[in-house]
Amino acid sequence: MAKYLQDFSNGPLDYYRKKASFDWKKMKVFLFTEEVVEFKQQVYKELQEHSMFIPQDILSTPSFEEQRKISAARTVNLLKLPSFSLDKIFANVKFQVAKLKIMIDLDPSATIKNSIAYGMFPSAIQGLGTDRHTDYIFDSLSGKIIGAYCLTEFGHGSNAKSIQTTATYDKKSKEFILHSPNFEAAKCWAGNLGEMATHAIVYAQLIMPGGINHSMHPFIVNIRDPDTFLPYPGIIVGDMGEKIALNGVDNGFVMFNQYRIPRVNLLNKNGDVTEEGKYVTPYKDPNKRHGASLGALSVGRVVIIGLCSTYANSALTVAIRYAAVRKQFGPEGGEEVSILEYQSHQHRLIPYLAAAYILQIFSEYIGTVQFQIILDSFGGIQNEQSVELGLELHAISSGGKPLAGWIVRDAVQECREACAGHGYLKAAGLGDIRNSNDANCTYEGENHILIQQTSNWLLKFWPLILNGQQFKFPLGSVDFLSNAREILNSKFTCKSVEQFAHPENILKMYQWLVCYLLKNSYEKYETLSKTMDPFWARSESQVYYLKNLAIVYIQHFMIQRTYITLLESQDPQIQAVLTKITALYGAWTLEKHIPTFYEGGYATGSGLVTLLHSTVLNLCKDLKNDVVALIDVIAPPDFLNKSVLGKSDGLVYKHLEDAMLRRPGATSRPSWWKEINEWNNASLKSKL
Amino acid sequence: MAKYLQDFSNGPLDYYRKKASFDWKKMKVFLFTEEVVEFKQQVYKELQEHSMFIPQDILSTPSFEEQRKISAARTVNLLKLPSFSLDKIFANVKFQVAKLKIMIDLDPSATIKNSIAYGMFPSAIQGLGTDRHTDYIFDSLSGKIIGAYCLTEFGHGSNAKSIQTTATYDKKSKEFILHSPNFEAAKCWAGNLGEMATHAIVYAQLIMPGGINHSMHPFIVNIRDPDTFLPYPGIIVGDMGEKIALNGVDNGFVMFNQYRIPRVNLLNKNGDVTEEGKYVTPYKDPNKRHGASLGALSVGRVVIIGLCSTYANSALTVAIRYAAVRKQFGPEGGEEVSILEYQSHQHRLIPYLAAAYILQIFSEYIGTVQFQIILDSFGGIQNEQSVELGLELHAISSGGKPLAGWIVRDAVQECREACAGHGYLKAAGLGDIRNSNDANCTYEGENHILIQQTSNWLLKFWPLILNGQQFKFPLGSVDFLSNAREILNSKFTCKSVEQFAHPENILKMYQWLVCYLLKNSYEKYETLSKTMDPFWARSESQVYYLKNLAIVYIQHFMIQRTYITLLESQDPQIQAVLTKITALYGAWTLEKHIPTFYEGGYATGSGLVTLLHSTVLNLCKDLKNDVVALIDVIAPPDFLNKSVLGKSDGLVYKHLEDAMLRRPGATSRPSWWKEINEWNNASLKSKL
Repeated sequence: MAKYLQDFSNGPLDYYRKKASFDWKKMKVFLFTEEVVEFKQQVYKELQEHSMFIPQDILSTPSFEEQRKISAARTVNLLKLPSFSLDKIFANVKFQVAKLKIMIDLDPSATIKNSIAYGMFPSAIQGLGTDRHTDYIFDSLSGKIIGAYCLTEFGHGSNAKSIQTTATYDKKSKEFILHSPNFEAAKCWAGNLGEMATHAIVYAQLIMPGGINHSMHPFIVNIRDPDTFLPYPGIIVGDMGEKIALNGVDNGFVMFNQYRIPRVNLLNKNGDVTEEGKYVTPYKDPNKRHGASLGALSVGRVVIIGLCSTYANSALTVAIRYAAVRKQFGPEGGEEVSILEYQSHQHRLIPYLAAAYILQIFSEYIGTVQFQIILDSFGGIQNEQSVELGLELHAISSGGKPLAGWIVRDAVQECREACAGHGYLKAAGLGDIRNSNDANCTYEGENHILIQQTSNWLLKFWPLILNGQQFKFPLGSVDFLSNAREILNSKFTCKSVEQFAHPENILKMYQWLVCYLLKNSYEKYETLSKTMDPFWARSESQVYYLKNLAIVYIQHFMIQRTYITLLESQDPQIQAVLTKITALYGAWTLEKHIPTFYEGGYATGSGLVTLLHSTVLNLCKDLKNDVVALIDVIAPPDFLNKSVLGKSDGLVYKHLEDAMLRRPGATSRPSWWKEINEWNNASLKSKL
Repeated sequence: MAKYLQDFSNGPLDYYRKKASFDWKKMKVFLFTEEVVEFKQQVYKELQEHSMFIPQDILSTPSFEEQRKISAARTVNLLKLPSFSLDKIFANVKFQVAKLKIMIDLDPSATIKNSIAYGMFPSAIQGLGTDRHTDYIFDSLSGKIIGAYCLTEFGHGSNAKSIQTTATYDKKSKEFILHSPNFEAAKCWAGNLGEMATHAIVYAQLIMPGGINHSMHPFIVNIRDPDTFLPYPGIIVGDMGEKIALNGVDNGFVMFNQYRIPRVNLLNKNGDVTEEGKYVTPYKDPNKRHGASLGALSVGRVVIIGLCSTYANSALTVAIRYAAVRKQFGPEGGEEVSILEYQSHQHRLIPYLAAAYILQIFSEYIGTVQFQIILDSFGGIQNEQSVELGLELHAISSGGKPLAGWIVRDAVQECREACAGHGYLKAAGLGDIRNSNDANCTYEGENHILIQQTSNWLLKFWPLILNGQQFKFPLGSVDFLSNAREILNSKFTCKSVEQFAHPENILKMYQWLVCYLLKNSYEKYETLSKTMDPFWARSESQVYYLKNLAIVYIQHFMIQRTYITLLESQDPQIQAVLTKITALYGAWTLEKHIPTFYEGGYATGSGLVTLLHSTVLNLCKDLKNDVVALIDVIAPPDFLNKSVLGKSDGLVYKHLEDAMLRRPGATSRPSWWKEINEWNNASLKSKL
């Protein structure tokens, strides 16, 4: 078993590695499966054969132009990697998840560009178009054309329905005329559009002769001549310029000036204009057609959950390994000790390591579910439960993506601070991870807006609960609601840290939170609706109610999935450490919900707070000797590990020394050194 | 009054400006005083006369080299600004605070370099040296020499006492021999050291003949020849390279190879070696000498509180103005509404705006206290209360700096997310603020370590309380401890949102928290000390105890200071809005302490939670129409406002359009466009 995994070289991390309570290789195989571990090792081998796939020098940021070129080259060339060929990837749905995470470790910008051009773009055509669009799918899958996806406009993001781009049908020429009435209607943020896209899916209000607006529809639009990469006349397309990070992605904007496209370029699965010039749709309710048309977006959110998980693993790798090696202070007269030994440092990092594990397991699970649906769709397989699965997955991805983004935002920040000054170096790698992850809180749905999809879905269940309905959904995320009444009558009963730390007890507390917040949110919303527009009633029910409801629902599901997973292990050591991780994540996240427990009468007195605090601190201490081995399981391989502080050899100061002295010009005068005294002297002169 | 303040141009922000409940100009004069407002306007005028002081184009990051040169030039030339001349600045202690904040708005890197070279360096010599070092003070104040401050080593930051650089006294030559035994002993992170410093204050273990180590002492060391900017032989000095941000600062490292300096270069106020080669010190306890020698560091923390406040103001300016202008969604059939109208958005931003105000008032206050001490010291004035003032200021700055760093870290992040996609553009300015503020959590004391200074100071008071001692400190931060017993017997009694929102009631709740956490932390530490080394007992008392104690103490003091300030206003409208701000900040920060209230029996039942939530939401709604005017009071002037989203004209889309189309090359092909098809074709070929 695990024959592909090599031992780490000896060094300062040995101390903790030897103290681990489990075998990291066995854990790795348990979490990923033997085939996936083997697949990843093979991909690493292939990547290292091409200098293009070796990360840039971590000491300095390449110029904007260079970043663009590097990511573009990787975007296209990743298609060529033998292990990433369609037949290899389709052999095991888990390979798709593994491929995504490896690409992220290599280059987040190239991953995003690659996923849009060769994943999202053909998927969307498959989902939105019909037979007449099949060539676009094959051309993009083979890299012949490069696609972008244009929905957002400068003036409209979350409220996509109100976009202002129009596609007016011209009966005579059988063409649509695309037009941007003003700058706010310009499409923006579309990845690949800035410099490379030859084609784009563009959403526009479909206007029929006489001015009837059939609301927004997707069109396929030629953007640039694939031979010259010049835009076609009638199109102003450009690049949005520098961003906080992910500067390898050419996010673009485009304005249409009465730009004509053939009728057949309408992606017509959910609405069409016939050759005779008649609008037809299988949907009576335009809102339903709209929903069907946006369904293709869920995969983007699942991909982001994978991005988040990968970032968390990389950041924790740096901070945990550094905490094990870095020594500072110690008892009077004694030696200095690793900062990992301090309660404060344990409490800063170990709960986030637990969160990284929860996200690791959750992202693999939800990625597998999502990619299986896509594979089934390409293979023409219809799942019996597909409608309910679609709704449940929509709710989970719409809440899971925000939660993952926020968890990792906070985790990476804590890792940065926990590495103190040296963590502020570019070469520590944490700034880049943070700045890249930052986008995860926004794209594919601004977190606070997107998560309302989840609470809206849950809110509908309260009347059903009152009617005694039983819940049985494909992914099992709300099945406990069948017992909502009993759950609401339950109270906090744990008497010891051991009881509190049992995942089943933590799940019970979360179930109470979901039921309580569901009931209260529903009642709040209903009460407000009597005196105000439902739109405002919904808005006024967000804080402390609907937002928290969505969050506890997702937290419960993540813990539930981790618990189900760990029970599948046959290895008592692995089960033991994963149980602690689950309990720590659960107890630690429950802290933020303590007010709700007291508000709802679930707890009285000091017991819950005292036990919760002790549970968190005990688990941190308990896990302290395992954290280095836990990192070894999820760390990126050294050649993709972009941090001088986080290498597997633990030689922090050697790598720092190298980083300080190796940089060209590190010890020479700046080119403008003579000017310093000119400034100084002018200063003196001006005072004379 | 306020004749120097101009009205803003009409535009999309008018709607909220007209709804404000107070006069923003009167508020500005109240917060800053007439003289300071005038001073700032004068400085703005002077800055705008020199292109060197106009911020770079916000669309793209200058190269590393360019950033260095720009900040270096500004560092030196800011000395020349007429309004920044010593006599002008010394005319009013508040000018010093104002100067600092204006420099930060202009260029954080130049501010840091300037503050080290012409503030911290001469101050430290004044505090650590004697008459024989006076020339260094004058030479640095006049810009003749450029100083750096070298304490931290690669291997030792927080635990400064264990640094490894040695200064061995050579009796024969009457010299000290500076030496770095290994790379971990190299000094690092010293600002100005990387490229510009001619001199540095270097801390080293003072070793006398025979090997007796008198622990660390400060020395003045020539680093580079001021004519050639080449280092002297025996010194390897270099630049640390790229950081997450603040790349205009040349943070450097230096290694000494048996480098000789004259005996008199020892900064000898707290310990000296006589001409006869004898070590002498006025301190018997080396720990006390050590403390006196590090006392000069408190000013750095106060400067950082000013940095934090300035960043908060800038970030909130962007997010609040954008929230007022950005419209998205609306009730069925109605127009789209400003996102500022949504409960969720109000709750995301308005508490942080309240925090920015609290920090604004706190940073002015503590800055004034600190700079007055420095002015007094240069003027030879000894304050009667100076020892107690020094201790109290040390505790406040050691807790205030971490808290300010964390508040602003979270505030800027929320602002970034609240501006969604457009907030991710470099041109939105928020990424740069976040990345610059990030350092505030680390330098001049890693936050979690530094804040222990505050709790250590407080911890000593519990036995005194038990003895019935009355507390009266110069800044009044702990005077309420005189009533600790009564406070500990008090309970939560608010019955309405109005009661809860009264600052005095919020202060009472905070006083209970301080007393409760002080008592519990003391008892926890004492209990643990019976079974473990005091070092470990201290470590095991941090989480939930000492760390929280320090935080609530500082939060209480910040709110107290704001409340005292607002009571000084004669304008009922200003008093009303500042009262709401104080209450909102107080209630919102109390949320995190709800578990403690229930744990300690201060509250039972659901009342506290329900009232607190209603108070926060009501105050957000109440302040909603005032937030644009509140921003107008604290916003940087437009020429220093580095965001397309946050200008005072509110023309968000015009500035965005300009940013998109103005960038050179925005709409042209990348230089490597031909390679795209080469990559594509190679891909196809490889499949043939």
